[in-house]
Amino acid sequence: MTIKKEKTREFIIDMSYPLFAKNGFNKITMKDICEATKLSRGGLYSHFSSTRKIFEAILEKLSHKEEINFYEEMENSIPATVIMNRALVLMEYEMNHPEDSLSLAMYEYSGSVESGLMQHFNKISVEKWTALIQYGLERGEFYNVNVDELVQVILYTYQGIRMWSRIIPMSPDVFASITNHIKNQLYGEKNDGI
Amino acid sequence: MTIKKEKTREFIIDMSYPLFAKNGFNKITMKDICEATKLSRGGLYSHFSSTRKIFEAILEKLSHKEEINFYEEMENSIPATVIMNRALVLMEYEMNHPEDSLSLAMYEYSGSVESGLMQHFNKISVEKWTALIQYGLERGEFYNVNVDELVQVILYTYQGIRMWSRIIPMSPDVFASITNHIKNQLYGEKNDGI
Repeated sequence: MTIKKEKTREFIIDMSYPLFAKNGFNKITMKDICEATKLSRGGLYSHFSSTRKIFEAILEKLSHKEEINFYEEMENSIPATVIMNRALVLMEYEMNHPEDSLSLAMYEYSGSVESGLMQHFNKISVEKWTALIQYGLERGEFYNVNVDELVQVILYTYQGIRMWSRIIPMSPDVFASITNHIKNQLYGEKNDGI
Repeated sequence: MTIKKEKTREFIIDMSYPLFAKNGFNKITMKDICEATKLSRGGLYSHFSSTRKIFEAILEKLSHKEEINFYEEMENSIPATVIMNRALVLMEYEMNHPEDSLSLAMYEYSGSVESGLMQHFNKISVEKWTALIQYGLERGEFYNVNVDELVQVILYTYQGIRMWSRIIPMSPDVFASITNHIKNQLYGEKNDGI
């Protein structure tokens, strides 16, 4: 792919993201994306044949971006607590921005296609968090938690918040509750009372 | 309300539930509910003026049903671990039945109305779980957890699973991970290893 073509592709992905976040997957048409990107129909179709392809490119980009951070930092022997703290800050930041949540779009997308791609992304997330927790255990930084259990708790509290923060207004305290809970499981003070 | 009228109302609620669970809120019309209940248009409208009213009655019924169980059992001095175990068995059962999840319908419903009613139901859930955990603490049955934190973890792991189990196929192990985690926080063996 030429650099220019690659740049336009990235531009389409970035401009489409808020459309899907706001409206879900089903409502968005290629025409909407032409309007948002100011590309001609021909121009857009030379990059993507459908909104489905664009949405999949968004998911791919998101999952790839996150993946790199974790593994790079582990390779550079950054302490597990540092990586985890950064990840939880990012998580809380995302929770604080429900308008960016792709929850509804992912839900609708998955209803119209085979679930293979969503399973793939779910697997990447499970592996990423599992690797980080195991890294912290090996380095003696984390408490001896049940890794599989805690990974599921991390994934689904996050997803639950991402969805419900679009349904009801949520206080930042709620987001902090989730990230504190994860931290306390791994390296915080336990039993810090009520 | 006469008994017959009340029965028909309950019947409408029960027959509409699977329609909303399967299709979400927006797609369902009063005509669909006439067909599902075999009621005439006039018959249906004498009970509910809109799909919105029916959906709200479903939510009200669900929240009321759950609420009673908890408080009644606490009043009867049932041990907190027994109540919690029952609640977690029910939670796992529900997680195992993604086809019954109203997640999408609640999402769509909340997009078309003020969020007041969803906040009301959220508040009922928070209060219910908070009361149960505090009851277990007072009876000395539960570890000294951070109540507010754990309540949020319970609510949003559940909601995350309810939504994602409609997006990807999920193994019952995942559901057990969540309920075990909650149990271990409160009265299970801690640090039971990986």
